Amino acid sequence: MYHHVKKLMYTVRVGDPDPRFGKMLLEQFGGANGELAAAMQYSIQGLNCDDPARKDMLMDIGTEELSHLEVIGTLARMHLAPLKNLKNKEAAYADPLIAICGGGGVSLNNSQGNPWTADYLKITGELDVDLRNNIAAEGRAKIVYERLIDFTDDSQSKEALQFLMTREITHMKVFSMALESLGKGKFEVGKIPPSEEWVNKYFNDSTGEGELGKDATGPWNTGGDWEKVDNPAFKGLGGK
Amino acid sequence: MYHHVKKLMYTVRVGDPDPRFGKMLLEQFGGANGELAAAMQYSIQGLNCDDPARKDMLMDIGTEELSHLEVIGTLARMHLAPLKNLKNKEAAYADPLIAICGGGGVSLNNSQGNPWTADYLKITGELDVDLRNNIAAEGRAKIVYERLIDFTDDSQSKEALQFLMTREITHMKVFSMALESLGKGKFEVGKIPPSEEWVNKYFNDSTGEGELGKDATGPWNTGGDWEKVDNPAFKGLGGK
Amino acid sequence: MYHHVKKLMYTVRVGDPDPRFGKMLLEQFGGANGELAAAMQYSIQGLNCDDPARKDMLMDIGTEELSHLEVIGTLARMHLAPLKNLKNKEAAYADPLIAICGGGGVSLNNSQGNPWTADYLKITGELDVDLRNNIAAEGRAKIVYERLIDFTDDSQSKEALQFLMTREITHMKVFSMALESLGKGKFEVGKIPPSEEWVNKYFNDSTGEGELGKDATGPWNTGGDWEKVDNPAFKGLGGK
Amino acid sequence: MYHHVKKLMYTVRVGDPDPRFGKMLLEQFGGANGELAAAMQYSIQGLNCDDPARKDMLMDIGTEELSHLEVIGTLARMHLAPLKNLKNKEAAYADPLIAICGGGGVSLNNSQGNPWTADYLKITGELDVDLRNNIAAEGRAKIVYERLIDFTDDSQSKEALQFLMTREITHMKVFSMALESLGKGKFEVGKIPPSEEWVNKYFNDSTGEGELGKDATGPWNTGGDWEKVDNPAFKGLGGK
Amino acid sequence: MYHHVKKLMYTVRVGDPDPRFGKMLLEQFGGANGELAAAMQYSIQGLNCDDPARKDMLMDIGTEELSHLEVIGTLARMHLAPLKNLKNKEAAYADPLIAICGGGGVSLNNSQGNPWTADYLKITGELDVDLRNNIAAEGRAKIVYERLIDFTDDSQSKEALQFLMTREITHMKVFSMALESLGKGKFEVGKIPPSEEWVNKYFNDSTGEGELGKDATGPWNTGGDWEKVDNPAFKGLGGK
Amino acid sequence: MYHHVKKLMYTVRVGDPDPRFGKMLLEQFGGANGELAAAMQYSIQGLNCDDPARKDMLMDIGTEELSHLEVIGTLARMHLAPLKNLKNKEAAYADPLIAICGGGGVSLNNSQGNPWTADYLKITGELDVDLRNNIAAEGRAKIVYERLIDFTDDSQSKEALQFLMTREITHMKVFSMALESLGKGKFEVGKIPPSEEWVNKYFNDSTGEGELGKDATGPWNTGGDWEKVDNPAFKGLGGK
Repeated sequence: MYHHVKKLMYTVRVGDPDPRFGKMLLEQFGGANGELAAAMQYSIQGLNCDDPARKDMLMDIGTEELSHLEVIGTLARMHLAPLKNLKNKEAAYADPLIAICGGGGVSLNNSQGNPWTADYLKITGELDVDLRNNIAAEGRAKIVYERLIDFTDDSQSKEALQFLMTREITHMKVFSMALESLGKGKFEVGKIPPSEEWVNKYFNDSTGEGELGKDATGPWNTGGDWEKVDNPAFKGLGGK
Repeated sequence: MYHHVKKLMYTVRVGDPDPRFGKMLLEQFGGANGELAAAMQYSIQGLNCDDPARKDMLMDIGTEELSHLEVIGTLARMHLAPLKNLKNKEAAYADPLIAICGGGGVSLNNSQGNPWTADYLKITGELDVDLRNNIAAEGRAKIVYERLIDFTDDSQSKEALQFLMTREITHMKVFSMALESLGKGKFEVGKIPPSEEWVNKYFNDSTGEGELGKDATGPWNTGGDWEKVDNPAFKGLGGK
Repeated sequence: MYHHVKKLMYTVRVGDPDPRFGKMLLEQFGGANGELAAAMQYSIQGLNCDDPARKDMLMDIGTEELSHLEVIGTLARMHLAPLKNLKNKEAAYADPLIAICGGGGVSLNNSQGNPWTADYLKITGELDVDLRNNIAAEGRAKIVYERLIDFTDDSQSKEALQFLMTREITHMKVFSMALESLGKGKFEVGKIPPSEEWVNKYFNDSTGEGELGKDATGPWNTGGDWEKVDNPAFKGLGGK
Repeated sequence: MYHHVKKLMYTVRVGDPDPRFGKMLLEQFGGANGELAAAMQYSIQGLNCDDPARKDMLMDIGTEELSHLEVIGTLARMHLAPLKNLKNKEAAYADPLIAICGGGGVSLNNSQGNPWTADYLKITGELDVDLRNNIAAEGRAKIVYERLIDFTDDSQSKEALQFLMTREITHMKVFSMALESLGKGKFEVGKIPPSEEWVNKYFNDSTGEGELGKDATGPWNTGGDWEKVDNPAFKGLGGK
Repeated sequence: MYHHVKKLMYTVRVGDPDPRFGKMLLEQFGGANGELAAAMQYSIQGLNCDDPARKDMLMDIGTEELSHLEVIGTLARMHLAPLKNLKNKEAAYADPLIAICGGGGVSLNNSQGNPWTADYLKITGELDVDLRNNIAAEGRAKIVYERLIDFTDDSQSKEALQFLMTREITHMKVFSMALESLGKGKFEVGKIPPSEEWVNKYFNDSTGEGELGKDATGPWNTGGDWEKVDNPAFKGLGGK
Repeated sequence: MYHHVKKLMYTVRVGDPDPRFGKMLLEQFGGANGELAAAMQYSIQGLNCDDPARKDMLMDIGTEELSHLEVIGTLARMHLAPLKNLKNKEAAYADPLIAICGGGGVSLNNSQGNPWTADYLKITGELDVDLRNNIAAEGRAKIVYERLIDFTDDSQSKEALQFLMTREITHMKVFSMALESLGKGKFEVGKIPPSEEWVNKYFNDSTGEGELGKDATGPWNTGGDWEKVDNPAFKGLGGK
């Protein structure tokens, strides 16, 4: 059961409303890496989760993201406020969907007006995989908030965004520790082991040299257990 | 530039075609965690990448996933073959979109007929974040292949799926090593540091006890630097 | 700010799990008229609302719908439980997206597997219009729950659905009373009055008699202020 | 069967084409509350309707909306005309999808370029519910036209929009009278009555006081049959 | 302006309703190559068309397709009729979206339940290109109707589908003749000529021999003006 | 199996980056008629194709389109480069999705930010129909490239676009010749012949005279085998 309290998790203020920045902020309201996506991904993982301790954790964070949704929505709405005055033509042009269709209020669309879709979510019902999905999701949200902070000159907007950005790192830590505490091997997913014959072969499928670079080596294809297979499309894959 | 060789990366054979299993296999052809999603995610990250060594790696794996797309597509097509005979009604009912609209051939839809969409992709242009996206993506693909293997009794199908599943673990290793080699801190994303005031607070936003469990503790909310804040919605967040 | 309590708003039990009914139940979890759609429509209207009293009401109901989302999600999950055993082939065939891709857990898809989309929402930022949207939405949700009750023979499922269905009527009352209390005319929307010349003309654009019926009259086109214009496409619209 | 006459239902002229306003107008051509949505919602309800008199009415209005689609499409096309001259760069930037991909002609996209989708439609096959859907739909269309009128300074555009806006009120009246003539109770939907135990309880799920307001009372939660339940998430729901 | 006559363009009857076939028929109602797609593609091309004679033709056919939409919708509805009885469980399982959410009536979804989207349309505003789009569209619709005819054993359904299928060939002829009458060269599109250096080179980008076949020649890559370039990815493209 | 070579098929350079033109270019990267759409349409047709010679041809061109995807992606990225500097506000406003969410790199969205979807593809599994789909697709791509060339003043961008445009004509020739070599009648699709009774009737469904033109004749409705049926909706279709 949910309860709502009529306070924001972080008070937001805006010095100088910028409708076009408001449109950008919608990315974190109704966009692929935004707060609704986070809230739904974690809460539904939580609903499906059979591990009681981590289920609690997923519900904690899923719920916090709903509170973030309110914060970013309120901030976006303040920046979009000039759209309500339809005689302010430049403001209204900034986002016709919100100005004309939404009356200047926020909606679940991203910075380009695309409607939020559950296709953004990554939910597999395999706890360790879902925790990796969440770590990645928090990384994405962090960098998007950072770019929003870098973009705006409004110090009050920066402050709220800094709070939200910080919490993404908090959640990244939580999910990482929850993953580690499962005690699974680093590349252990599910129960069926990979085939020895193929698992350590690095296929060098992109070769040559040109505008797009040239072949390179690194710990991800050289040394250790790696066996590098050059041009498999042409040489064929020996052993089949 | 791309080149195609008229051989499959892994030869596929099917003992007993099962059109409903064929429909499931489409999940890895035109679904959210399937081979086209992988091919596009890595190849476009590669196109955008300014780090020449990891750009090469992204192109290698992106290209390999295109070859996987052919393998899973061929396997799905073999299982869907009975749909071509429209008098085989049960087969045709299994996937009307493919039977009636597609003439029994594979298409870029998932196991429920939803069209593939770029909303499945996670591309941020921040290399470490993208590598985490890819590690998570490989985990998802691994577990989906495992479930397909667990589902079918056809040993030849299992064999091809085992190959594809193995390669996901290979790629997971590659992306992990590429991430580690960047030398970034575990929770270091972008350049703006999180706020000290908020980063180590765990918000206990889901409390009580009932059908949905009860409060739990673990390394993700207790010990270390963690400060646990119970019921922030009611207590307010001190310090603001 | 949101808070979550680990109890369901209505305890759900299932006598005999039916995966295909579970798939139907997803319609109210991740479908067009389902609980997430309701929660988001009302909560975002609330976020945008400048009328403090009705804003409170919108937040009350928006929050309750989040609790309903948990109830229907838990019920669906119980019916979908057999999908977790992939050797139970018929169960797994019932919804391959959930069986193979979701590991048997619920996801934000409707009864046909379509991902939830914000295109389902009707939010205009005009309070009386939004209240009408909500009255209509509650009517839709009511009839969908009624059909689910009519469909299933499982008495425990019926009980939970009856609770959820009842609450839709409650909300319909709330929204109707909130609309009435605005004191607006029945056909008064916005500020610009309709043109006298056109507002009371009923255009009889579909004529003739055949498999699709024949012309009919009723209080919606005859009597009162109505002026009936037959065949406007052919006669032209006098006065222009 | 349909027939088309090569005249517009309302002659449109444009004084000063404004491509960015043309883009806004697309909201009523290919948008969520636009004329195609109206035409399809009513016509398909009509096709499904078993009540012969109201089926006739649904077909009348569904057909009229197709004529409106032509009117708004023609108006939008006139405002978008400068996009045809690709050397008029600012015009072409206004909507690259229409300029580059559509050659300057209208397409079934909304004001942000999103493709029209049947997800916009609300069709339930329950006549009274569908009539409520239509009343709400007309309210939305009315307010969108009003905003377009408020936005533009072009008097000829205003005139055509005024015609279209007026007809929405006409339709709202028609649908309301058709609903009333069904003689159903105000909160009577379908056949299964709501549970007495729950139907008159108002759940006060959003409490406290802050930036988001404070608790309020009104006829929608106080007086009459209402029983107000405060904080149900915490108190539990007595009687279960 | 549109007018509707309450007769079907082709009377439909159904001997033995088959809900699963009804679901297939939806492909031509709300699917990618169905009647709404045809109606919208041609009518909007017509609305945009500056060539008065072909504009008339586009409106003729666009309007006819609206009449087809009614025919196929009525046929689908007859086959879906058993879904209205929710106690007929197998029927209701056949398409839960239509049974539960739509009350057994047709909706603008395809055979897999995907909502109709304007992404299906091909409208470029270049008359000859649009006519080619339409020729291709008619070919698709023809083959889909043929498959539906091949699938069903119901002779009355076959008859109506035969009518609809025949009209696609009629339209294919119309569009072809309209294209020919433009007098454009066979490969003449737009105004900018292709570069002589590249236009007659056939790139042999797929080579080798295996499960996927082997290199082949035909009039499309050999003889005439063709110059075959083998393995351009490896040899490079001389002359750059 | 695929192989990638780190060279572009056509070297691209940009004199003066124009982010808004970069956004337009995305139409051919992630848009409906863009290079991914072409690559997928032909490659999947090839995968499904049972005619070995034309299968080879489909794979050749499908593969070439992947190389084009790289070329247009690289060109778009160069024009979008200013978006990476978030302090260049006007540049960042040009496409917030790419600036904020994508870090300035290209993504599979079209010129309005819509995500690429498989709904763009036309794949029927009927070879002659698919070849017509491809001829039409090449026509669309040609005209879009022409418009992009007409729009920009940057000569280096023009040059690369001219190469890509030329190749569309090449492919149009290939598909046309492949279709002709099948030796099918011009209006011969599938196996079931059209009904003699209906195939040569032209339905004059749009009549009258007004802003939308007037009735016209041409070889597509007059002469030859044509029988013109005026106003079928009103006269009825004799013979039924």
